Parts: sequence; structure tokens; C-alpha cells
Amino acid sequence: MDNQVEIHYCTQCRWMLRAAWMGQELLTTFEQELAALTLKPGTGGVFEIRANGKLIWSRKEKGRFPEITELKQLVRDVIAPEKDLGHADKKRT
Amino acid sequence: MDNQVEIHYCTQCRWMLRAAWMGQELLTTFEQELAALTLKPGTGGVFEIRANGKLIWSRKEKGRFPEITELKQLVRDVIAPEKDLGHADKKRT
Repeated sequence: MDNQVEIHYCTQCRWMLRAAWMGQELLTTFEQELAALTLKPGTGGVFEIRANGKLIWSRKEKGRFPEITELKQLVRDVIAPEKDLGHADKKRT
Repeated sequence: MDNQVEIHYCTQCRWMLRAAWMGQELLTTFEQELAALTLKPGTGGVFEIRANGKLIWSRKEKGRFPEITELKQLVRDVIAPEKDLGHADKKRT
């Protein structure tokens, strides 16, 4: 179980709290699957999330932050594809 | 600037919030010095903090959690020995 997620955030944009919150959400949801959650301070508006080294979110590319359920699905797809996220997996109308 | 801190905490003891809080304190205080802060879920009552790989706190060894000012001093001593922590460096009476 060596799964790891990395959140690279811009300190100038004051995104630490957001990154730390998302990190804690992931650590809670993937308590059995995640071995490490790393917060990496950056600059220049960076907000990138990697799961096992794979870029799963780039704010510059997407033009927005991920919703938390969306982020959990993206992380799940990489580290625990068989995991059911419960209500977070329901499609919204 | 490759300084990194790792907080290894016991999920069974529900220490994630504590670990994440301490992590955010360190990211705030050492915004210019810290390249990565990693939260590592563990079991069996583990609460260990490493700075650049060096064990600076073990709850089992010390019998308690670090106070936050104490933790900042320990991290500072490893990653930025010249840094003045301001009021956190004052001795308590």
C-alpha cells in the first residue's frame, strides 16, 4: 500500500487552507488506501494534484478547483478503482 | 530548498486533525523554507515527526505530544537554524 497523493498549491494565492482541507478529506475517505498525503507550497497560481505521480488536476488546465466529490472520484480511479464512494458516486441531476 | 517534514500519526487514535493542524502551522511558519509537508497515516499509537528524515519527535519516547512552539523550534533547528521564531522563541517563566 504505497499510494500517495500530492497537492501543489500557491502560497501567494493563500490556498494552503484549501489544499489542507482537501488533503484531510482524502485521508479520511481513503484511510485504508493512502500511505501519504503531501502538501507542497508553490507560487505563480499553481494548484495541481497528483495521485501516484499522475497529474489528476491542474487548475490552470481546468480553469477551476475540483469539487471535493469530483476529486475523490479522480483519486479513487488511480489508487482504488474498485472502491465504492457511496453517495459521492451518485450522479447529480 | 528541499526541506521536508513528515508527520506519521495513528488513525485508530484519531490523530489526523491534530497532525494536519500541526502541519499547517509548520507550513505557515516555514513558508519560505519548507518544500513539502507529508501526512502519513499509521496505526498502533504512532505519532512521530521527522524533519529532513531526522526523527525530531516520538510520542512513545516523550510520553506526550509536542507543544506547537516546541515543535517549531525543533523543526527550525533542522531546516533553518538561523531563523528567528519571534515570540515563539521566548522562554517561558
